[in-house]
Amino acid sequence: MGRAHSNAWRQAPKFFNLKANVELHTICGRDAAGVSAARAQLGWQHAATDWREVVESPLIDIVDITSPPHLHAEMAIAAVKNGKHVLCEKVFALDVKQAAAMLAAAQKAKVVHMVCHNYRRIPAIALAKRMIEEGALGRIFHFRARYAQDRLADPEFPLDWRLQKETSGSGVHSDINSHIIDLGRYLVGEFTEVLGLLNTFVPERPLASELARGHRKMGKVTVPDSAMFLGRMENGVLANLEVTRYAPGRRNQITLEINGSKGSLVFDLEDMNRLKFYNVDDPKDRQGFRDILVTQRDGVQPYVSNWWPPGHIIGYEHTFVHTVADFVNACVEGKAVQPTFEDGLKNQRVLAAVEESSNKGRWVKVAV
Amino acid sequence: MGRAHSNAWRQAPKFFNLKANVELHTICGRDAAGVSAARAQLGWQHAATDWREVVESPLIDIVDITSPPHLHAEMAIAAVKNGKHVLCEKVFALDVKQAAAMLAAAQKAKVVHMVCHNYRRIPAIALAKRMIEEGALGRIFHFRARYAQDRLADPEFPLDWRLQKETSGSGVHSDINSHIIDLGRYLVGEFTEVLGLLNTFVPERPLASELARGHRKMGKVTVPDSAMFLGRMENGVLANLEVTRYAPGRRNQITLEINGSKGSLVFDLEDMNRLKFYNVDDPKDRQGFRDILVTQRDGVQPYVSNWWPPGHIIGYEHTFVHTVADFVNACVEGKAVQPTFEDGLKNQRVLAAVEESSNKGRWVKVAV
Amino acid sequence: MGRAHSNAWRQAPKFFNLKANVELHTICGRDAAGVSAARAQLGWQHAATDWREVVESPLIDIVDITSPPHLHAEMAIAAVKNGKHVLCEKVFALDVKQAAAMLAAAQKAKVVHMVCHNYRRIPAIALAKRMIEEGALGRIFHFRARYAQDRLADPEFPLDWRLQKETSGSGVHSDINSHIIDLGRYLVGEFTEVLGLLNTFVPERPLASELARGHRKMGKVTVPDSAMFLGRMENGVLANLEVTRYAPGRRNQITLEINGSKGSLVFDLEDMNRLKFYNVDDPKDRQGFRDILVTQRDGVQPYVSNWWPPGHIIGYEHTFVHTVADFVNACVEGKAVQPTFEDGLKNQRVLAAVEESSNKGRWVKVAV
Amino acid sequence: MGRAHSNAWRQAPKFFNLKANVELHTICGRDAAGVSAARAQLGWQHAATDWREVVESPLIDIVDITSPPHLHAEMAIAAVKNGKHVLCEKVFALDVKQAAAMLAAAQKAKVVHMVCHNYRRIPAIALAKRMIEEGALGRIFHFRARYAQDRLADPEFPLDWRLQKETSGSGVHSDINSHIIDLGRYLVGEFTEVLGLLNTFVPERPLASELARGHRKMGKVTVPDSAMFLGRMENGVLANLEVTRYAPGRRNQITLEINGSKGSLVFDLEDMNRLKFYNVDDPKDRQGFRDILVTQRDGVQPYVSNWWPPGHIIGYEHTFVHTVADFVNACVEGKAVQPTFEDGLKNQRVLAAVEESSNKGRWVKVAV
Repeated sequence: MGRAHSNAWRQAPKFFNLKANVELHTICGRDAAGVSAARAQLGWQHAATDWREVVESPLIDIVDITSPPHLHAEMAIAAVKNGKHVLCEKVFALDVKQAAAMLAAAQKAKVVHMVCHNYRRIPAIALAKRMIEEGALGRIFHFRARYAQDRLADPEFPLDWRLQKETSGSGVHSDINSHIIDLGRYLVGEFTEVLGLLNTFVPERPLASELARGHRKMGKVTVPDSAMFLGRMENGVLANLEVTRYAPGRRNQITLEINGSKGSLVFDLEDMNRLKFYNVDDPKDRQGFRDILVTQRDGVQPYVSNWWPPGHIIGYEHTFVHTVADFVNACVEGKAVQPTFEDGLKNQRVLAAVEESSNKGRWVKVAV
Repeated sequence: MGRAHSNAWRQAPKFFNLKANVELHTICGRDAAGVSAARAQLGWQHAATDWREVVESPLIDIVDITSPPHLHAEMAIAAVKNGKHVLCEKVFALDVKQAAAMLAAAQKAKVVHMVCHNYRRIPAIALAKRMIEEGALGRIFHFRARYAQDRLADPEFPLDWRLQKETSGSGVHSDINSHIIDLGRYLVGEFTEVLGLLNTFVPERPLASELARGHRKMGKVTVPDSAMFLGRMENGVLANLEVTRYAPGRRNQITLEINGSKGSLVFDLEDMNRLKFYNVDDPKDRQGFRDILVTQRDGVQPYVSNWWPPGHIIGYEHTFVHTVADFVNACVEGKAVQPTFEDGLKNQRVLAAVEESSNKGRWVKVAV
Repeated sequence: MGRAHSNAWRQAPKFFNLKANVELHTICGRDAAGVSAARAQLGWQHAATDWREVVESPLIDIVDITSPPHLHAEMAIAAVKNGKHVLCEKVFALDVKQAAAMLAAAQKAKVVHMVCHNYRRIPAIALAKRMIEEGALGRIFHFRARYAQDRLADPEFPLDWRLQKETSGSGVHSDINSHIIDLGRYLVGEFTEVLGLLNTFVPERPLASELARGHRKMGKVTVPDSAMFLGRMENGVLANLEVTRYAPGRRNQITLEINGSKGSLVFDLEDMNRLKFYNVDDPKDRQGFRDILVTQRDGVQPYVSNWWPPGHIIGYEHTFVHTVADFVNACVEGKAVQPTFEDGLKNQRVLAAVEESSNKGRWVKVAV
Repeated sequence: MGRAHSNAWRQAPKFFNLKANVELHTICGRDAAGVSAARAQLGWQHAATDWREVVESPLIDIVDITSPPHLHAEMAIAAVKNGKHVLCEKVFALDVKQAAAMLAAAQKAKVVHMVCHNYRRIPAIALAKRMIEEGALGRIFHFRARYAQDRLADPEFPLDWRLQKETSGSGVHSDINSHIIDLGRYLVGEFTEVLGLLNTFVPERPLASELARGHRKMGKVTVPDSAMFLGRMENGVLANLEVTRYAPGRRNQITLEINGSKGSLVFDLEDMNRLKFYNVDDPKDRQGFRDILVTQRDGVQPYVSNWWPPGHIIGYEHTFVHTVADFVNACVEGKAVQPTFEDGLKNQRVLAAVEESSNKGRWVKVAV
């Protein structure tokens, strides 16, 4: 994440008209040698090992938090109390309580606050948002999403921090379900109630730490490694979401399908420069999903005009550049920029409701 | 269905080596004029309007039931009692009780009994089955299926018999969920417990009967028009199934994805001559989903050798021809042929469990 | 071919409203035992071994010629002289002279004559034709086609009759180039001049006849096994055509792309139920190739209404059924039905011009 | 091009282990104000308006030439004479003579010289190269390539410098045919003789310069706007190449297909993170094109390990970063790095042969 965020801070001023000069002032990490090397490699002016120094520095206006999730709340609250604008990586917080505290602190401090759900700023997703707002889908019936990866399909894949409750929160649920929950809320609307199933396929794995020492010792996986939930959203939309790391061949695939009375939209993260659109109003003899390559110029489609000519695709890290560009301009203008910490809180409530539903084996309403 | 089944009976002897001569003896329907026209058009020797005559006729060995679901039980039981081998269209029965009675009667009569889940005999599906049995996927983690159509997305689509409880059972749930439940059981194994959600998006629609008379009068939709369920299957497999008729652009799409420790399989009914296979054991630098065009000769892949050269695809109705060919040979040999009435019963139990789960809002175990 | 044609004659009356009753009167073949078995298997009333008897029989109205190409001219001319309507398989003739004689005889006899270029009646192709006629592509710039198969990629594939000049004419050139030349003429217009390259990758192969006897003896390949040509068509269209049997993974793939000022069309025979259409006039932010699944009802798209509901695909042999249906109705009405023997002649002239161009290494004009 | 190259120089040190520190010393342009703005925007230390100063500066080791093609020869020759290592954009030169002079000068100067054919360093292309070298395709039969864009399909698109001979050389032929010729030579081998057709669909267009002043005045297009050629390559490979800007919906699409006795490879630039591979040796029942997402870690696939985790795709500009990274390391080590100026010369000879063939209407051998 440090690499992707540093890249975004370096690249945003080169490709977007920012309303302020951006300086990569200080990079912060626990290990002095590591952070020093990172500073040089990633293009920062200074390095620090104490994050409190950074959030208190009068030379700094913006704090970008990419630490592990269990540190987000403390850091973000300290930063906003010091009047910094804060961009915070997801998973936003460990639980609803933390998230609420972070939001409250940011609101009280009247700073600009944003959660780094970078996938909102994939051009195809931003285009989908605009099309839905313009009514291209009519009344929406279905929101269907799946985030699938494959790295755990091998039961010998070692047990690392992501598979332990203390360090990871709720594993794959918080880690990647948060992404597609956020996309659902962004594109379609709020979840109202959910019916969830959190699951752990492989309960024990060889400990990574022991493997490093040449031993094979098993440890307990204490978080879900797969999850699914059904849900109801505002306006009667049905939701079906699934996340897994047990899907061989799916490297990092989010598939979305949204169906409405006037059309459908389909997206695949592994093919992220494209958006598929079916339009009910096309002539009956030539209806079909349009395969939109989202690389048009002249502002026709979001963000892409700032990059290359039509047909020249962009990649994963560009989504961070778009996020940073919008965030910087919002900071200068003192305007809110989605997704705010309020979105972070709302996403957290959905995660919590799914978890509760899974525990209770029945429907749970999402808190408002 | 009459057209598709008649075609299958005509075509099977032309393309498959059957162990008996097939004669299209009698077609049966309620309306004398209609059945007479159908007889001529579809290639039958005789027509009848009383199905009891047919199932009792000593000239007939096989009865193929394609009537609406609420008539299946009575007809099938009468037919097997008369010693006929029976092929019965799905939806197999209106409820578990009927299904159990049908199975019991068939077993008692020692006839060959089969449910016409024709999608089992799509060559790509039959190949998937064989690959799974051979271990190509290793331990299976996920069964994911969706049956999506689009004809109800328009709220002005009229209310017909499929949308009324008396004639349709449980609407889209029994009608098309039964297909993907059957495919899940065939390819992966039994469902053990389910968490379901049956839904009706559009509760009132213009009555078809009134529209025919030039009036617009609304009627109540009394069945689900969309449904989803999560489930657990044998051996810890997670299931996620969804059916809808509110997906514009999806004409008749079943999408399946099965993930295991050694690979994944993906299928799309609208592209039914293909099967996609990801093999974990392919060399790391050239792994990817293989797009298998299932049209190989020389018996390499199921059924297709009986048709055309490689690359020459087949269509929807061929699945019925395969069903009939296997059924006829099983009748001659007096052997069981899947899916039997026992499969019909088991499918019905899953349907019932999902319905109960939806009503109760909690997990329901599937009866054994 | 006998199987595909017999199937078409059996199926056409079942699925299309024909203006006459069709009887499968006599099937003809050289080998008495073979043709007798075929008669029973394929559903014909009578069998014959002397084709002259058939073309002279007063009981027969239509003659369908599926013999090897070198016999077409003699048979077709005899049939039309006897007043039969004739459907003749492609490759229409061995050379331009034969083709011209066949056309002249048919015109003189005032019968209905048709070449069986069945791919014209793939619904997606017929839809493409209609769209082009309606101006959906505007001014056409490019016609690009490739017919690719893979069976010769293995140099050990035996030398059979298709690889010898006496029996095959000009090999892959006449055999499959004729298909895409015909599609180009049908969809876009006449070829005016060509620049060709006929090629033989593997000049010697093991003789099939010797292999059958357990020996490995090499024989000379005397025809092209691959061919390409560039061309100019009417109205300034550029053409690029290629055929090969050296494309591993391409079982039987025709890919077409047609580009015009208003849009583009793309087709793939291995995915023959689909047509891709790009429309310049779609809104700029949502332009993309539409993936049209050509299975709509109510006559919206050609031919498919006679088969199954939307989303239920058809296969290879259906193209012959459509051909036969149109041919029968044309015979009854005494009307011309494309592609006529005149198309057969024109296709032959293009084949000849490409061959001459390849020999001379320069542009050759297509005779008119 | 300035933006893409500047980005590459900035990014290469951040993502690749370079054997030297890279400083973006001086950016050069004709217009003082423009180059000054570009300097700030693109991250250069100095700006200059006289390119001779730059190529003579003792502070500079590397010269990267992105000027219009007609200036390449003079600049490159001056730079190498001053001992600079030179990276030169394509189109390399206006003609064979220039190209030969550039190569001779570079060889004499013993500097490192490279043509910026960035598409060679698309990871999927580099992987294809490696697979071919390892024999994954066996004996190669076909090289088939098309570069298609759509910006000229509208006849009202204005006449700019790319459509005039003085400024553009041979239009679309030199501009984009050079790309796919280079890819053919890189992946498959040398062209030996060609049969070409250069074409201009729209001979007159409104002058861009006049349109800017509010007038509509037509000017003559003096270069090809579309081109095709057939060819023979080393080892009997057949080539078919086509370029056009008249293909609506094709924004910037290079499609490649290479067929050999052991397999096939397929690539599409609009989907540049993927490579499709068909392997003849896969088991017969599960053969199919593999859809390889080229994003694997651990050095398994070229270049991508330096970017993001599996499934996180890269874009157009990354190909320049790869080019610069390889070039810098070659400069430090004093080693040749493909494609050299010799490749530039060889590409130019193919372009010239196609042009001559088009003029003469017959085969032309490529000079060696």
